[in-house]
Amino acid sequence: MTIQRVLMGPGPSDVPAEVLAALARPTIGHLDPEFLRVLDETQGMLRQVFGTKSALTLPISATGSAGMETCFVNLLEPGDHALICRHGVFGGRMAEVARRAGAEVTLVEAPWGRPIDPDDVAAAAQKRAFKVLAVVHAETSTGVLQDLSPFRAIADSCGALLLVDAVTSLAGVPVNVDDMGIDAIYSGTQKCLSCPPGLSPISFSERARDALAARATPVQSWYLDLTLIGQYFGGERVYHHTAPVNMIFALHEALRLVLSEGLENRYTRHRTQAEALYQGLEALGLELVVEPPARLPPLTLVRIPDGVDDVTVRKKLLTEHDLEIGGGLGDFKGKAWRIGLMGASATPKHVELCLSALADALS
Amino acid sequence: MTIQRVLMGPGPSDVPAEVLAALARPTIGHLDPEFLRVLDETQGMLRQVFGTKSALTLPISATGSAGMETCFVNLLEPGDHALICRHGVFGGRMAEVARRAGAEVTLVEAPWGRPIDPDDVAAAAQKRAFKVLAVVHAETSTGVLQDLSPFRAIADSCGALLLVDAVTSLAGVPVNVDDMGIDAIYSGTQKCLSCPPGLSPISFSERARDALAARATPVQSWYLDLTLIGQYFGGERVYHHTAPVNMIFALHEALRLVLSEGLENRYTRHRTQAEALYQGLEALGLELVVEPPARLPPLTLVRIPDGVDDVTVRKKLLTEHDLEIGGGLGDFKGKAWRIGLMGASATPKHVELCLSALADALS
Repeated sequence: MTIQRVLMGPGPSDVPAEVLAALARPTIGHLDPEFLRVLDETQGMLRQVFGTKSALTLPISATGSAGMETCFVNLLEPGDHALICRHGVFGGRMAEVARRAGAEVTLVEAPWGRPIDPDDVAAAAQKRAFKVLAVVHAETSTGVLQDLSPFRAIADSCGALLLVDAVTSLAGVPVNVDDMGIDAIYSGTQKCLSCPPGLSPISFSERARDALAARATPVQSWYLDLTLIGQYFGGERVYHHTAPVNMIFALHEALRLVLSEGLENRYTRHRTQAEALYQGLEALGLELVVEPPARLPPLTLVRIPDGVDDVTVRKKLLTEHDLEIGGGLGDFKGKAWRIGLMGASATPKHVELCLSALADALS
Repeated sequence: MTIQRVLMGPGPSDVPAEVLAALARPTIGHLDPEFLRVLDETQGMLRQVFGTKSALTLPISATGSAGMETCFVNLLEPGDHALICRHGVFGGRMAEVARRAGAEVTLVEAPWGRPIDPDDVAAAAQKRAFKVLAVVHAETSTGVLQDLSPFRAIADSCGALLLVDAVTSLAGVPVNVDDMGIDAIYSGTQKCLSCPPGLSPISFSERARDALAARATPVQSWYLDLTLIGQYFGGERVYHHTAPVNMIFALHEALRLVLSEGLENRYTRHRTQAEALYQGLEALGLELVVEPPARLPPLTLVRIPDGVDDVTVRKKLLTEHDLEIGGGLGDFKGKAWRIGLMGASATPKHVELCLSALADALS
C-alpha cells in the first residue's frame, strides 16, 4: 500500500518525481567510474548551492544531525572552548554535541521565537578566546532566520572558527559561505533541497581544514573523520565506508533541479509563497510567532489558538487532506504549529491547500 | 544515463526491482502513522533475520561502519579494556574505533586468510577482565568465516560482552544472535540483504542494554547514542533525528523478500552457489585464498595469478561485461580478487557469467 502525503511540516518536504526516479536507479558500486563521476558532479553542485569554492564540500553519509556532529568533532578537541548561540532546540543540540566532544561551552541565549542579539555574542566574545563560534542560521524549532552578517567579525574578535547550522536554510534562503566567511557548515537533504532524508551536505573552509590538520588528538568519531572521508572524495578514492549510492543519485538530481531553477529564483519563490501564507493565516485570525524581520520563509510558526487541540487538528489534516504540518518542539510543544514551505513544497497550491484545510479543521 | 551492472564485488550486491520500487515510494513524514507502522514491521523482521527477541534491534541511519561505531561507543567508556580479534581490515577498524572511544585494546591476531584461533583468545581472556570481546564473523577483506561457537564461553571467562561484526554474514550464513549469546551485533544493508547501502541494522542484548544504562559517562556520539535512538524506535517516538524514510522503505521490502524465501533456503542457496563458483574457479586454474573449512560463501578470495594485472582485468570485466568484482584490500591489495555471491547476486547465472567473463579476461 503506497501512501501519498502533501508534506508541509519541518521536513521531509515533497520530493519531485525526478528525484524519486533517480533514487531508484540500479545500484552500482561505490568505486564504479560512473558513480565517481556522479559523486564529483554532486560535489560541484553542492559548492554552487553553498556558495563556496572549498574542495572539502561533500555529503556526509547520514542525516543532518550527523552533519552537525561532523563539524563539531572535527574542529573541537577536549578542553577547547566553544561559544554557542542557543535560541531553540538545535542550538541546544549543538551545545550537547560540543560537550560530548570534550569542549567547554559558553552559551549566548535568546528567547524562543526571537533571533540572537549579536551584541550579546560580541560581549561574550570579549571575555576570552574561543576555538569555535556556532550559530543556527534557520532554527527549525522556532522559525527564526538569523542574520549572519555580524558573525564573521565577532568570530575574528575571539579567534574563533565560524560554524553554522544551515539545515533549513540551504537552497531556500541565501547561504553564501565564502562571502560570509563561514568555516564549517552543515545541512540536510530533506528540507529546501527536496531530496529524501539520509544525507548531510557539509563544507569546511581552508581555515577549518588547517585546524583539522593541526589537531593534537584523533577525531573521536572514526565514521565522521573528515580527513579519512576526504581521502575517498578526493582524487585518491581510498576506501573509508561504502557510500550510500542511491541516496547520492537522488541528491545529484535534487541539486540539478535546484540549479536549473536558479538560486535567486528559488529564494524569491520561497519568500513569495511565505508572504502569501502569512496573509492567509492572519486572515484566518491566526497569530504568527515570529516578528516580520526574523521570519524564516521556509518555515512558519503559528500559535495554536486557545481551546484548540493540537493533535486533533493535525490528525484531521492528515486523515482528511493527506496534509502533514508539524507540531511544536521543545518550548513550543502543544503551543505552535510548524508549517513548512520548503523546496518543492513552496508553491501556490501548497499555500492554498494548507489554508483551506486549516480553515476546515478550525471551523 | 542509467548504467546497469552485475554486482559481484564485496558489496553493494544486486538490488531486486521490488526493493528499488520500494525505495522510490513517495516520501512521507518520519512521524506519520503509516511510516511508524513500516518501521515497527522492519524491526520485527530484523529480529527474525538476526535470530533475536531483543527489543533494541533497529537500523542505524548510516552505513555499516557507523553500526560498528554505535556498538563500541555505547558499550565502552574511557579506560575500559577491550579484547579485539584482528584477522583483516575490519578487525583492525574495530580496534581503531575502540581506541577512539578511549578504550585500552588488547589484540588477538591471525594471519590474513585464516580464522582466529579460539585458543589464542581464551589465553588472552585469562590474563585480565575485559568489558568487550569483539570478533568479525565474516571478514570482508579476507573471505574468512569465523566459527563463533566458542566465543560466548570465552567472553564469560573474562566477564566481557560479546560484540560481533556480521556485515557480510547476515542473511547469507546463519547468524543466531540469541542462541550464540551475542550481546551487540551490527550489519550492513548492501551485502546479503541486497538493499542499497545506507543503513546499518544492529541489535543489543538485555545484558548490553544493562551495561548501557549503567554508564558513568555520556556516549561520546550524540548521533549514535542508542538510549536516545531507542526513544524514537520505542513506543514514545521522541524526536531524535529525521529517519531516512525511503531507505527504511527499501530495507522493509528487502527483509520481506529474505523472509519470504526463508532463511534456511537462503543459506543453502549461498552455499550451493559458492561451491559451484569454487569448482569453476579451480577449473580455470585459479587458486582460492581460504582453506575449505573457513570459506565464507558470500565472498570468495581468489589469488591473482603471477603476471596478471589486477586493474586491467577488473576494468575489462566492467567495460566488456558490465561485471563488477572487488579488488583486494589491505594486505591483499593487488594480490587477490574478491568475488561476492551475496543475496540477489548468489544465483547460477551470476556464477556462470563470472566464470565465463574471467575465462575471457584471462585468456
